[in-house]
Amino acid sequence: MTVVQQKPKIEVCFSPLQFHLFDSKDSIVVVVDILRATTVITTMFHNGVHKVIPVQTIENALEYKKKGYLVVAERDGEKLEFADFGNSPYYFTSDIVKGKELVYSTTNGTNAITMGKNSKQVIIGSFMNLTRVSEYLKTKTANVLILCAGWKDRFNLEDTLFAGALSEKLINSGLFITKCDSANASMDLWNIAKNDLTNYKEKIAHRHRLKKLGLDDVIDYCFTIDSTEVLPYFDKGTLKML
Amino acid sequence: MTVVQQKPKIEVCFSPLQFHLFDSKDSIVVVVDILRATTVITTMFHNGVHKVIPVQTIENALEYKKKGYLVVAERDGEKLEFADFGNSPYYFTSDIVKGKELVYSTTNGTNAITMGKNSKQVIIGSFMNLTRVSEYLKTKTANVLILCAGWKDRFNLEDTLFAGALSEKLINSGLFITKCDSANASMDLWNIAKNDLTNYKEKIAHRHRLKKLGLDDVIDYCFTIDSTEVLPYFDKGTLKML
Repeated sequence: MTVVQQKPKIEVCFSPLQFHLFDSKDSIVVVVDILRATTVITTMFHNGVHKVIPVQTIENALEYKKKGYLVVAERDGEKLEFADFGNSPYYFTSDIVKGKELVYSTTNGTNAITMGKNSKQVIIGSFMNLTRVSEYLKTKTANVLILCAGWKDRFNLEDTLFAGALSEKLINSGLFITKCDSANASMDLWNIAKNDLTNYKEKIAHRHRLKKLGLDDVIDYCFTIDSTEVLPYFDKGTLKML
Repeated sequence: MTVVQQKPKIEVCFSPLQFHLFDSKDSIVVVVDILRATTVITTMFHNGVHKVIPVQTIENALEYKKKGYLVVAERDGEKLEFADFGNSPYYFTSDIVKGKELVYSTTNGTNAITMGKNSKQVIIGSFMNLTRVSEYLKTKTANVLILCAGWKDRFNLEDTLFAGALSEKLINSGLFITKCDSANASMDLWNIAKNDLTNYKEKIAHRHRLKKLGLDDVIDYCFTIDSTEVLPYFDKGTLKML
């Protein structure tokens, strides 16, 4: 008798509010917050950080600060006063982070990272490590759930484009299937955007929020594809490198 | 002094779970559930129904049945046993519905309709009355919030395509603006789909759910554009015709 092995499936969750609707227990969750949490985290590990502790509340971040930790914290794009750093990837050069332990709290990203704690595994995706993430997933025979951090629980374009880029790579490998409307929509949007990212980025609402704050110098950086091979993952409350 | 009037804005909400994130109080809410609630409702009014009472729970639908109402009720695509009709638009011919009062309960659509009750107005959108909805909205100077009923609180493609088609008409009129990522994504997806709807429809997950139940004979009907001029709206617990 021939046993037909079902290929693992790809699903995309557009908002943390919808995460409970998906079967995350049997999936590797790829958390994505292109502007800017997962891009920043990828940068930190690229530049040699030892580990990063994501915390959800401002109070929690402040407690760590009092204990002497280096704290990165922002809300609505802006650095919190007590924090050592805001949320631009440019701060986290190797001389700042190498070998260090950082505490990290942002508007959307850190909440999304901790949501996946009961899944098979939580890994961090950004355009910076797109191919690394996809190559890693191809070595596993596990379902993939791409969790877009979004903007305050709303859909956003930048995380969706990443979800589309990653889904496309996985589908094209022939190792995965999808019957998920959000995955199909993401791939279609990525197909529109990928050949003219410079113009497409203009549509992104959060780009304009960051611009108002004078923080939009990071946009091109956040859309640079495959600039690193690092793959951060989340385990027992801490981000480390695979 | 010249007062610059801000044009009304378009927003798209991809899931009832996210509805509270939007400012619905100052918006006309267009509820859409292409497969099949809002297509069915548009059909009922096209064929002369007097009014339709949407109810959310099975218990509530059963109570109306005991009082002698004609009840349309389905869950997960299938007609409930006690109901007079399932959820195919083909049932609601003029000889069945003309002048009647129907009670209506479905998996996703009826919940979405009742959510908007504190907004400026709730109207019913489907491909059947696309141009009628857009012409109506152009006569108002109100924000527009397109609420996709989705599938069990998840994103779905068919409601998104309608949101894109309607947003495009409104934006092209020059009377509206949007800074909403979901509205922009919807328009891009509609632009991919509109010139080859026959093939694009194959991607839709709910199409395959209906096919398994032998209920997919309605798909082409649900994607037929501008087959009627009726515009149902929801007020004080009841759907009527504008």
